[in-house]
Formats: sequence, structure tokens, C-alpha cells
Amino acid sequence: MCDAAIALLAEDGARGLSHLKVDRRAGVPDGTTSFYYRTRSALLHGVADQIVGYDVVAFAEAFKDEPTDGGDAILSMLAGQMMRIRTEPNLSRTRARLELTMLSKRDEDLAAGFQEVLESYRSLAERVVVAIQPDREPPDSPLVAEQAAVLLTFLSGMVFGFANGATEPATGEHIARQIRAVILGVAAENT
Amino acid sequence: MCDAAIALLAEDGARGLSHLKVDRRAGVPDGTTSFYYRTRSALLHGVADQIVGYDVVAFAEAFKDEPTDGGDAILSMLAGQMMRIRTEPNLSRTRARLELTMLSKRDEDLAAGFQEVLESYRSLAERVVVAIQPDREPPDSPLVAEQAAVLLTFLSGMVFGFANGATEPATGEHIARQIRAVILGVAAENT
Repeated sequence: MCDAAIALLAEDGARGLSHLKVDRRAGVPDGTTSFYYRTRSALLHGVADQIVGYDVVAFAEAFKDEPTDGGDAILSMLAGQMMRIRTEPNLSRTRARLELTMLSKRDEDLAAGFQEVLESYRSLAERVVVAIQPDREPPDSPLVAEQAAVLLTFLSGMVFGFANGATEPATGEHIARQIRAVILGVAAENT
Repeated sequence: MCDAAIALLAEDGARGLSHLKVDRRAGVPDGTTSFYYRTRSALLHGVADQIVGYDVVAFAEAFKDEPTDGGDAILSMLAGQMMRIRTEPNLSRTRARLELTMLSKRDEDLAAGFQEVLESYRSLAERVVVAIQPDREPPDSPLVAEQAAVLLTFLSGMVFGFANGATEPATGEHIARQIRAVILGVAAENT
């Protein structure tokens, strides 16, 4: 049911989502979704939890070889994750997540759930930043935080673009170069 | 009516928008919006045109002193435009624009309208890039295009964040520093 709800959200946004539409899409008897998710809010939270679960699995998988990998490996892994947004099933999940993020302005619980995900992205971004500059020892904490913040803003813009049909940058190598440029640019501007 | 529609889109997304809701919100007799905009698609296009119109006016105003201004002035102007997204009426217009962008995946005309706006942003971004590096003469076109692309991705991420309640970066000065870091970082990575 959650996957059906993700598909509906991805296609038509919040307007495309109703308990009955999820039933029909999932091929379950009318009323099934209402039985499991009594309210619209419960349904939205169920979808959000599902999406967050997919994210956690994807990142655990992608990062399982760390920290033995160097900066280039981690960069190329991150670029690969970005490229995957452009194809299914990740495209729909990403679009659904953006829709839910927009909706979470009016739903504090939903916002809190995504806030947790954002924090895990932030710690991931900091690991990328530190991995790219292994010679800085000990790492400069305020600088790393600033680099991670700018990186997250940049990646968020790229996610929004890919989710809405952007075709550039066209390769993982190109994305990796842009990520490196953003991280090192912040370092140069702040030293 | 379009301002009422923008407010509805900003608050509840595509789901919040219907001809009748716009009538009620705008305080006009039931049926007025349907009279001017026969279909939902016509209403969405009307809203998109209105938002694009606001953008054009804002940028014409912000850039009216260019090109006599130097890089710092243009950077501070751009940072100021970003800061304004956080407050009304720009916050609602920005949220409505993001909702329409998400919807435009299924509406080619809507997508074409936003594509035009994106092109004008792109040329604006290129002017910012060139203004910040006045010593490069003649400008390196492929590099400027790459810098502008990365800058647009970064700004797009910031717009999405501000539209969804982000409070960082907190000042225009901070935003200006981040923009400069991104632009110069791409130059450093590509030379």
C-alpha cells in the first residue's frame, strides 16, 4: 500500500492521494487502506516512514565499505546515489519525499520525521567533507559544518532538479567534480 | 483571484486548489473563477503567469543599476533577493512556484513557461559569475556556464530550504559568502 501511495504522490502530488485511490492502485479491496491508516495524516506518516526506511537501507549499503575508502571512493559513491534518483523506483520515491516535505509545513510530526533524516544526511555530508580533505588534522569543526551545509544545499537543489526532469549534469563523474568544487570552494573562502 | 490561488497553493499544495476555494478566498461570487479560468489547467497557467510576472518585476528592479555596479554589489543584491524569500508575500509565491514546478511534470505547457523563467535565471547567474571575476578577460565561456549551472543548483536548494522553513544561512552576508565560495570553487576545480 505504501508503494502505491508513493506512486500516486509522485504522479499527482498531494491531490493524487486518497485512501480509495491507494486501494485501487495497490489492487486491494476498497477500504483496506482506511483500515490500516484511519486518517489522511496516518497515511502520510506511513508513506514518510516507508521512504525514510528506503533511504536508510540505501545509505547503509552504499557506506558499508567506509571508512577504509578514500575521498575519491566516497565521492564517487555519493555521485552514484545522485544519479540513481533519475531512474525508478528512486525517482518516484524522491518526488513523493519532496511532496511530503512541502506538506510537512502544516504537520509537525511529519516535519519532525524528516528533520531526523536531514540530520543523518548532515552527518553523511560531514563524513564526505572530511574524507575529501584527509590532510586536515584535526578537522576544523566550524569549517566542516559550513562545508557540509553548503554541500547539502547544493545536493538538495540537484535532487529537486532531477526529480523534475533535469538531465544535467549527465554523468556521475561530472557530479563528483561539482561536489568537490563546492566543498573546496567553501574551504578556500574561509581560510 | 491569482493571489488567492497562490495563497491556497502555498498552504495546501495542489490539493488546496479548486475554482470554488479560490472564489471563497478571493471573496468573489461563487463561479467567478470558473468564468475566467474554465479548466483547472487554465487556472494553473494563470497562477504560473502571475508568479513569473512578479519575478520579472523583482529582478528588473533589483538589477536596474547594473552594469555599473561591481561584483560585491551584485552579490549583495542577489543575497538580498534570497533573504526576501523567507517573508511574505514572497514566501507564498515561492511555495506556489515549487508546487507548480512539481505539477509541471504532467503539463508540458506549464513546463515550457517555467523553462523560460529558468533560462532568464541562467543568464542572470552568468552575469553574477562574470561580475565576480572581472579580471578574466575575455570570460571563459564554458567555465562561466559551468559556474552558473552550479550556482543555480545551489540557489535552487536554498530556495527549497527557505520555502520549507530553513532558518540558515541567517544573514545576507552569509549567503553572499556561500555564493562566492561556490562560484570560485568551480573555477579552482576547472583550471
